[in-house]
Amino acid sequence: MVRLLRPCCRLLLPNLSCRSHHNDSAKGKRLLLSRLYQPRNIWEEQSSHLESKSNERTSKSHKLMIRAGLIQSSSPGCFHFLPYTVRSIEKLIRLIDKEMHGIGGQKVDLTSLHPADLWRQSGRWDLMGKELFRLVDRHNQDYCLGPTHEEVVTHLVSSGGSIYHKQLPLLLYQITRKFRDEPRPCFGLIRSREFYMKDMYTFDATEEAAFQTYNEVCQAYSNIFSALGLNFVKVQADTGNIGGKISHEFQLPATIGEDRLLVCQGCGFSANVETLQPGERDCPSCKEKLTETKGIEIGHTFYLGTKYSHIFNATCYDSQAKPFVAEMGCYGIGVSRLLAASLEVLSTEDDIHWPGLIAPYQVCLIPPKKGSKESEAALVAESLYDEIIHSVCGLRGEIVLDDRNNLTIGKRVKEAQMMGYPFVVVVGRKALENPPVFEVRSHNAGEVQFLSREGLIDFLKTVQVI
Amino acid sequence: MVRLLRPCCRLLLPNLSCRSHHNDSAKGKRLLLSRLYQPRNIWEEQSSHLESKSNERTSKSHKLMIRAGLIQSSSPGCFHFLPYTVRSIEKLIRLIDKEMHGIGGQKVDLTSLHPADLWRQSGRWDLMGKELFRLVDRHNQDYCLGPTHEEVVTHLVSSGGSIYHKQLPLLLYQITRKFRDEPRPCFGLIRSREFYMKDMYTFDATEEAAFQTYNEVCQAYSNIFSALGLNFVKVQADTGNIGGKISHEFQLPATIGEDRLLVCQGCGFSANVETLQPGERDCPSCKEKLTETKGIEIGHTFYLGTKYSHIFNATCYDSQAKPFVAEMGCYGIGVSRLLAASLEVLSTEDDIHWPGLIAPYQVCLIPPKKGSKESEAALVAESLYDEIIHSVCGLRGEIVLDDRNNLTIGKRVKEAQMMGYPFVVVVGRKALENPPVFEVRSHNAGEVQFLSREGLIDFLKTVQVI
Repeated sequence: MVRLLRPCCRLLLPNLSCRSHHNDSAKGKRLLLSRLYQPRNIWEEQSSHLESKSNERTSKSHKLMIRAGLIQSSSPGCFHFLPYTVRSIEKLIRLIDKEMHGIGGQKVDLTSLHPADLWRQSGRWDLMGKELFRLVDRHNQDYCLGPTHEEVVTHLVSSGGSIYHKQLPLLLYQITRKFRDEPRPCFGLIRSREFYMKDMYTFDATEEAAFQTYNEVCQAYSNIFSALGLNFVKVQADTGNIGGKISHEFQLPATIGEDRLLVCQGCGFSANVETLQPGERDCPSCKEKLTETKGIEIGHTFYLGTKYSHIFNATCYDSQAKPFVAEMGCYGIGVSRLLAASLEVLSTEDDIHWPGLIAPYQVCLIPPKKGSKESEAALVAESLYDEIIHSVCGLRGEIVLDDRNNLTIGKRVKEAQMMGYPFVVVVGRKALENPPVFEVRSHNAGEVQFLSREGLIDFLKTVQVI
Repeated sequence: MVRLLRPCCRLLLPNLSCRSHHNDSAKGKRLLLSRLYQPRNIWEEQSSHLESKSNERTSKSHKLMIRAGLIQSSSPGCFHFLPYTVRSIEKLIRLIDKEMHGIGGQKVDLTSLHPADLWRQSGRWDLMGKELFRLVDRHNQDYCLGPTHEEVVTHLVSSGGSIYHKQLPLLLYQITRKFRDEPRPCFGLIRSREFYMKDMYTFDATEEAAFQTYNEVCQAYSNIFSALGLNFVKVQADTGNIGGKISHEFQLPATIGEDRLLVCQGCGFSANVETLQPGERDCPSCKEKLTETKGIEIGHTFYLGTKYSHIFNATCYDSQAKPFVAEMGCYGIGVSRLLAASLEVLSTEDDIHWPGLIAPYQVCLIPPKKGSKESEAALVAESLYDEIIHSVCGLRGEIVLDDRNNLTIGKRVKEAQMMGYPFVVVVGRKALENPPVFEVRSHNAGEVQFLSREGLIDFLKTVQVI
């Protein structure tokens, strides 16, 4: 046994100055498109039968994500995430983590199985009706699958002992899978039954402090959506079955949106139509006419007051050690929905456009077709690939080499545009000139440039990655 | 609306050369221990009532994790992960991702809700009995919560279109929450009902190629466990209800282990006792006497053959475009179990010892007590903190400043040891000498050194982080 149990002294990650999740390329391995798992026949055959298989209402992003092999349906409103989507979601999570840490958020990971008793205590066991997925375990205990975690987190904080003033505001958040038995799942990841949500719960000693926390979280949300280049609207919203005193939604205007918004061009007032009097079309602030638009909800914030902290007895102490029932807020971003909604508003009917920062891969490099006049530029393409990952540290693991050299450059460029790589570098005839010239297509900007090797490297150094 | 919809031009992550998930500190903010959420009263009151509340059998790691505020029980066998645990698990996931990418693994994320039909097709809907959590949706459709994903992934690959030889071997994996209604959950995260598992599924054209893939995955598993400094044993194992032809388990020898292993000191043969004839105690290879030990299973590999690919018709094509039913393998690492099992074998009864690489924070820096003789060293401590995160890029976000300066250094050192920070830096009386000297306690090595400022910085540059 002694020989088997020898610990290992292998050194890990010697290159500390450039940590990366995807450092295959750093080892000299090239990421080959032909190796990537992506149900390609769907793309080639345009197989619309797959799209119409279920009775779900579809949308542009839904169709594009199916066609491009980004997701695959498992059951109504439940989708497998395929490799491109996983990469994008992981980047989105890093962006969210960064902003949540920036405001002092601490990450937890709460169970998906919720004991029914907690939901009975809040009264939502009955209130949620069929939207809760319910089950019993082998001992006949009732559980639900968490669609949101107000009950669970408040119980956690309450049973974990007192919160002292130095810990306030306490901001706990998680990014986990949530479950909701939607009556009519539709639009792929936009309205699904199993989805990723970032949910944050905040605890403060006073209403005033809770408001400040509320505003800080809203600002962090704005930062996230802005970093994705999204044109969002923040509207006053209804508190629904979550409860509480104040609520806002972050909405992406879109024709498929299921929320109706009223926005004032004059003073910037904006509201979900649910919060206004029926028929009200004048701005409550400046009396201008309100404009109606539809929106996809991508974030929702609630100032809860003491609704849950009272039920579960979550107490915190101010600087004089005086106990208070905690003032709470809760805040959600539909993570997988945000991804799909971004594609919905940014893409064309044929081409995916990712928010640049969270594109699965930043660059697709296309070498010449085998047997073509420019075929000897293939070696140039490979050495260019290696030079980029050597010189542009941030792009390691971010460059796909489209090695399917039985296809023309034109066909592969078209596919690359459909997949939405933010940058496509074509190594074609001009790469054989002296000095070589490369075609660089910036997908989101809709620009084409011809750059020297050095120019290309300098250009790629400006690409933002997360 | 126009004014509201202005996109933002905020620059993200200007410091590309040092990407980090936790870059609070990079902004000059210090990580203060008093701000961290950790149910501290549990620790102070030693409250054993919390440990014995349920009827679950406990273990050293279970008790330590509860006492230190790393996890909290939600229901039998279900635990909330609190911030320290989330950080550790995220590091473990990065380590696993790195090794999986190294062998060409592609990450997917499959649904937790599995349609019953897939499990009926494989015959495991009945076979799994009460271990499956089952539920029905609002349309009375049967589902289970995935404890493992052979059915789902094989169906995915089969319905996603043909796999071409250039894509082979195809290695798909995920790191997601799994559900298993254990008859007797125990030992905290070691045998729980809701847990994180890394599961990989591989597809090859021939048995020979599948064996090669099998060996590569096993090697990656060994790399992961070795990187954690664990003394593991790889034993031949039973295939259980997963099925297949060959199977190995990766086991951590431990007194609480529920698997019985027989190991040959002579030739290195080792096996789960289930795979041998009852009463067999001689090594089948060299006839030496076998030694029995108990183990905690942390990884399991299966060469499945065509069991699932045959049922779900998963076909792949060799280089001559000849179709084959795919030869499959499946591979699991219990991620949350691996974390707990590591603590189980590395810790003492009182002090947590993390595998250094995945400790939640690498360094705890302890300034002097307020009002003590050395209290003016407090400023030295703060400037030291700032210098470290400035000079040692890899440690950004990894250093906690124990700002509870109402407590003695001794008390905080004791707590830091209990929490298992790999490195504790004490800024005490010697820090006021000229030049200043710092006490550095290496928890896992059990060493204490006294270092100059430069010596300390150089020492910390050698700390491995992921």
